[in-house]
Amino acid sequence: MSFFESLKDYADITENRLSQILNQKDGGADRLNEAISYSALGGGKRLRAYLVLEFCNMLGIDKENALDYACAIEMIQAFSLIHDDLPAMDNDDMRRGKPSNHKAFGEATAILAGDSLALDSFAVAGRNAKCNKEQNADAVILLAEKSGSLGMCGGQQIDIDSEGKRIELEELLRLVDLKTGALFSCACTLGCIAANASEEQKKAANDFGLLCGRAFQITDDLLDINSTAEELGKTVGKDELQEKSTFPSLLTEKGAFEYAENYIEKAKKLLAIFPDNQAKTNILEFCDYILIRKK
Amino acid sequence: MSFFESLKDYADITENRLSQILNQKDGGADRLNEAISYSALGGGKRLRAYLVLEFCNMLGIDKENALDYACAIEMIQAFSLIHDDLPAMDNDDMRRGKPSNHKAFGEATAILAGDSLALDSFAVAGRNAKCNKEQNADAVILLAEKSGSLGMCGGQQIDIDSEGKRIELEELLRLVDLKTGALFSCACTLGCIAANASEEQKKAANDFGLLCGRAFQITDDLLDINSTAEELGKTVGKDELQEKSTFPSLLTEKGAFEYAENYIEKAKKLLAIFPDNQAKTNILEFCDYILIRKK
Repeated sequence: MSFFESLKDYADITENRLSQILNQKDGGADRLNEAISYSALGGGKRLRAYLVLEFCNMLGIDKENALDYACAIEMIQAFSLIHDDLPAMDNDDMRRGKPSNHKAFGEATAILAGDSLALDSFAVAGRNAKCNKEQNADAVILLAEKSGSLGMCGGQQIDIDSEGKRIELEELLRLVDLKTGALFSCACTLGCIAANASEEQKKAANDFGLLCGRAFQITDDLLDINSTAEELGKTVGKDELQEKSTFPSLLTEKGAFEYAENYIEKAKKLLAIFPDNQAKTNILEFCDYILIRKK
Repeated sequence: MSFFESLKDYADITENRLSQILNQKDGGADRLNEAISYSALGGGKRLRAYLVLEFCNMLGIDKENALDYACAIEMIQAFSLIHDDLPAMDNDDMRRGKPSNHKAFGEATAILAGDSLALDSFAVAGRNAKCNKEQNADAVILLAEKSGSLGMCGGQQIDIDSEGKRIELEELLRLVDLKTGALFSCACTLGCIAANASEEQKKAANDFGLLCGRAFQITDDLLDINSTAEELGKTVGKDELQEKSTFPSLLTEKGAFEYAENYIEKAKKLLAIFPDNQAKTNILEFCDYILIRKK
């Protein structure tokens, strides 16, 4: 399968498994479970799940082994979007072309839905029946480190602190490596854990993810300037409104895109230590996709 | 050491280890790390940590083995209090006699501090160097299940949904088992995991925690009626204000207390399968303490 076919296929596989996980729940609160499914299911490109599964594939191991890790990271991603959209955070009413979670369920339930997705994700990763407990313990530690105060949440805080300020490129990169890069590198490394990869391969996967995260953030910044809300399915022009320092504001649009191309070039080189196969070809195409994506 | 000496001692040990964990962090966002320490350190009775450590002790295993699990559950407890206090939730300005997290750091940072504590706790439990990876994987799964949508968060949602409504005792018990009991039973079972206890012992520890959770919630309800904010270090009279069904409102104060006594009696009986020693004597005293506590 080509990259785009795989991306679609893996998104479906992840969606089905996630739906199974969320629907087999026995107990809890109906309204909370509804709010969780509302944001965790039925949308998104599932890029992080794709990376988990394709890295596992590239290492010659059945991607089924990594599927629950893929679901776990998508739950973390869904949690972060719910909390990002809250009035006290980005105050966003739209997400993926529909009302954001707090608009649909109210703030209290949205906070709890985000919390639940974050917490439940560790049970999903920790219980992955296709991997052993050592792998699952490693996966959980990685997931926690990449999403918590030294990962994604730390990045969100730096993002908030830098609103209305001009920050230097170095600080912007630190922000982006945490806010965006952390989950990309987590995804690639989770695929490696499921495949029992070497430490060298895990390190390369981690760095690959960080570079892709930078390039992804740059194209995100550019789309925020050049797209309509309709095209993107979310609010646009936010960065300027929030007076955020972004790659285009520091480097011009053209300069920012050149940075993205440069990061992608470096990222591709890191794949040299992995076996050559269809999965690798697809991951190389994923790199190009980051640069040309329209949403 | 007697129960009260142990409670104090174990709180100090947990506080020290937690402080070490939070202060050895390298990176992230300063303001976020500050907000995390503000709520995670310097306060609370650390009852959940106490149960983790004393159950491990009772099983004849050095409580040091369980210390990082104790820290992890206290991080989950701290996260839940931060999010509970948010304007969209209980809207509480005071916590442990000082401004609640969002009053001190603003809502956005408080949301992220809660998120971070929740997420980071899994790295702490998952990396417990005194236990093996199998134990750590089990600990993480338990922590996630007891705190997520089928545990504490599910209970919070039922609590919100039942505001202003009269609910029956059965539904109140379901609520309390999730909102309060889940973390108590998690704590007791974490101590068992650190001590490689039998499945039978883990089951007894789980049920013991649920019963203590019920008794604890009843005395919490009674203190909410009969204490001052100064005595309690948090807002009082909330339940009536929020028109919540509580044990006293359903059973009268006297009736509610009798229920608490009954739960504690049952809880004590569950300890029969554990070895007799000082730790067990202390846990029995902990049971009595739940009934007589003044804050």
